Amino acid sequence: MPIISDKGRKMPESPIRKLVPYAEDAKKRGINVFHLNIGQPDIKTPQVALDAVKNNTLEILEYSRSEGSEEYRTKLAKYYAGRDINVDPKEIIITTGGSEALMFSMGSITDTDDEIIIPEPFYANYNGFATASGVKVVPVVSKIDNNFALPPIEDFEKLITPKTKAILICNPGNPTGYMYSKEEIKKLASIVRKHDLFLIADEVYREFAYDGAEHYSILQEEGLENNAIVIDSVSKRYSMCGARIGCLITRNKEVINTALKFAQARLSPPSFALIASEAALETPQSYFDEVIEEYVERRDLLISELHKIEGVTVAKPQGAFYCIAKLPVKNTDEFAQWLLEEFELNGETVMVAPAAGFYSTPGIGYDQVRIAYVLKKENLVKAVTILKEALKKYNA
Amino acid sequence: MPIISDKGRKMPESPIRKLVPYAEDAKKRGINVFHLNIGQPDIKTPQVALDAVKNNTLEILEYSRSEGSEEYRTKLAKYYAGRDINVDPKEIIITTGGSEALMFSMGSITDTDDEIIIPEPFYANYNGFATASGVKVVPVVSKIDNNFALPPIEDFEKLITPKTKAILICNPGNPTGYMYSKEEIKKLASIVRKHDLFLIADEVYREFAYDGAEHYSILQEEGLENNAIVIDSVSKRYSMCGARIGCLITRNKEVINTALKFAQARLSPPSFALIASEAALETPQSYFDEVIEEYVERRDLLISELHKIEGVTVAKPQGAFYCIAKLPVKNTDEFAQWLLEEFELNGETVMVAPAAGFYSTPGIGYDQVRIAYVLKKENLVKAVTILKEALKKYNA
Repeated sequence: MPIISDKGRKMPESPIRKLVPYAEDAKKRGINVFHLNIGQPDIKTPQVALDAVKNNTLEILEYSRSEGSEEYRTKLAKYYAGRDINVDPKEIIITTGGSEALMFSMGSITDTDDEIIIPEPFYANYNGFATASGVKVVPVVSKIDNNFALPPIEDFEKLITPKTKAILICNPGNPTGYMYSKEEIKKLASIVRKHDLFLIADEVYREFAYDGAEHYSILQEEGLENNAIVIDSVSKRYSMCGARIGCLITRNKEVINTALKFAQARLSPPSFALIASEAALETPQSYFDEVIEEYVERRDLLISELHKIEGVTVAKPQGAFYCIAKLPVKNTDEFAQWLLEEFELNGETVMVAPAAGFYSTPGIGYDQVRIAYVLKKENLVKAVTILKEALKKYNA
Repeated sequence: MPIISDKGRKMPESPIRKLVPYAEDAKKRGINVFHLNIGQPDIKTPQVALDAVKNNTLEILEYSRSEGSEEYRTKLAKYYAGRDINVDPKEIIITTGGSEALMFSMGSITDTDDEIIIPEPFYANYNGFATASGVKVVPVVSKIDNNFALPPIEDFEKLITPKTKAILICNPGNPTGYMYSKEEIKKLASIVRKHDLFLIADEVYREFAYDGAEHYSILQEEGLENNAIVIDSVSKRYSMCGARIGCLITRNKEVINTALKFAQARLSPPSFALIASEAALETPQSYFDEVIEEYVERRDLLISELHKIEGVTVAKPQGAFYCIAKLPVKNTDEFAQWLLEEFELNGETVMVAPAAGFYSTPGIGYDQVRIAYVLKKENLVKAVTILKEALKKYNA
C-alpha cells in the first residue's frame, strides 16, 4: 500500500472546523447551535456586489488574468490610496482568497525547513499553510494579561536564526483583536531591515478598527519597500467570505515576479467572484459605518457579558471581530466537544473554537477559546448565557 | 535586502501565458490575434449553469464546506455512476479547479525531493505544481512518431527509485490528445501496485473522446483502490474555465483525510462557482453531443490543414482539444514570439504555445508547438493559413 507524506501526516486539523461533525450531529438531534467558532459574519453582502453577479451577461465563463485584470487592480489601488497607502496596480496580484496569497508568499520566500516567526496566538491556518509549504513556525508568545500586545523586540531577536525568512503578523489580529500601534510596526520594521527578513502582514481586518484607533499598514512605513508583503481579502470587508478573492501586495519586484509564476500555474482566480469583488469597491461608506457601529456594540456587549462569568478573563479587542477568552476549564478541546455532544440549554448550545490550535507552542492555550462576535446582539447574549450555564454544569 | 526562495527561483514560466504581453502589444498595434495557445474554448457555457448564478438569492456570500456540500458531492457521484465509475460522495473533495486538486494530491503524498514520473510532453503546469511542492518531475518520453502512446513499461521501471511516490498521467492527454487504452491503464496499474506507488490521473478531458473511443478511468480498474487518485474539473466539460471548480477523488482513506486538511486550511471553494457547477450537472446530453461533433470537425479540419504545410508533422488526437505539431523551425519559443512581434498577414497573426515548456527533459520539444483547437472552423482555417505563410517568411 502506498504511503502518504510526512508533510501530510503533520498537517494540522483546523480548530475552527474540526468540531463541525459534532455540530452537525447536534443539529440532527434538533439542537440550535450558536456559531461563535467561525469568522462568518451574519452581515449582508453589499447589494452592489450581489447585483453585479446577478446582472452579469457572460456567455462563456472564461479564465481571467492570472494576476487579476488591470482594471480591478487599478480600482484596488484607488481603494488603498483612500487609506493613505500608495501602491501601483503592478504591485498587486489577485488571489483566491487571502489563503492563496499566504501560500504564494510562503512559496516565494521560503524553502523547506526555513522558519517564520509569528506572534502567538495566531490565525490557526498559518500552521496549515506553513506545514504545506514545508516551513517551520517559530512562535513568540504574546500574553492575554498584556492584551496580546507586541512581544518585546528582544524576544524576536532571540529567535532569529540563519533559517529565519520572515516575521508574520495579523493586524488587526485574528484571534486576539489586537491592533498594532505605529510604534510597534516601526519596531518590527527595524528588526526585519536589520536582519534582511520579510515582514508579512495579514491586514484583512483593516476596516475593522474601533474606538477611533487608526490602522497603520506596513505599506505606509517608509524604507520597507523590499521587505513588506501584505495579505488582503474581500472576505470580511464585504462579508463575502465565499467569494474567495484576496490579494498579495509587495513593492519587492523579485517577490511579485515570483508570486506571479505561482499565480500562472493555477491559471486564474474565480471569475464570478471577481465580478462581485470589483463591484464591491463601489460600496458606500455608510455600509462600513453601520457595520463598524454594529461590531462595536457586539464587542462591548460580548465583553461585558463574558466579564459576568466567574473565572473568565478576556482582553478587549480594538479591531477585527474576535476575542480570546480564558475559561475556568483545563482543556477547551474537550469542553467545546462536550458543549456540542452533551450540553443543551432549552434546546440550544454554542460552538466555540478551542484556542490551542491558535498556538504552536505545545501545551499552551488549552484554557482559552476564540469567540467570534459575528452574531446579532440578542443571539450573542443567548450564546454567552448558554456558555455561563454550561461552565457551571461542566465544573460541577 | 531579503532574498526569495530557491523554490521561487526555480518556478517555471508558463509556456501558455508567458507570451501574453507580446500578444497584448500586438493587439495594441491593431493586430487581430488568433489564440491557439490556450485551452479556452469559445463554446458557450451551459445556460442552466449561468442561469443558476443569475437567479441566486444569496444575501450573504458565506463560506461553503471545505470539501464541498454533501448535496453537490452526491450529485457528482451520480454523474460518475452514469460513466460506470462508482464512487462514494465521501471519496470526493471539491477543489478550486483541477489545479488545487493537483496541489492537494502532491501535498498529501510527497515530501521535499520526492519524485513523480510523468510521460512527457505533459501539461506544462505540472512543472509548476511540482516545483511549488518541492517535488522532482521525472519524465518518461513519449514520441510524436508513435502518436504519444504509453512508453514501454520497462521505461517506467528503469526510473523508479526509493524516492518515487507516483506516476501522473493526463487522460485524454493535454497537450497530446492521446487517449490511453484499457490495456495501457492496466499496465500502469500493475506497475504502481508492484512498487506501492500512487497513480494520479488527470481526467478533466474525460468527455472529449472521439471516433467512438471509450475513456477508461483508473477508478474503473479493480484492485487499485489504495493507489488511484483522480483529478477532475468542470472547466473544460462545461466550458467554464473561469469557475475554478474541480475535485480530487480517491478511495484511499488516508489520502482523502489528509487532502481534507489541506482543504480546511484554505477554508472553501468559491461559492458562486459552486452554484454554477452544481447546476451544470443538469446540462442535457444534446449539449455534449453538439460540442463533441464540433470538436471532431475542428480536429479533422485542423489536422488536414496542418498536413498541407510542408515540414509539419502532427499526430491525430483521439481526445481533448489539443495537438502537438512539429514545425520546420529550430526554436518555437523564438518563432512564437516573432509571430506576435514581427509577423502579420492582412493585420492578423496567431499565438501558439511553444512546446518545450511541456517537457522537462532539457533540450527536447523546441521544434514543437501545442495547438488548441478551440476556435470556430473558419478561424482555425485562417489561423493555419497565417501559420503557413509565417513559416515561409520565417524560413526564407
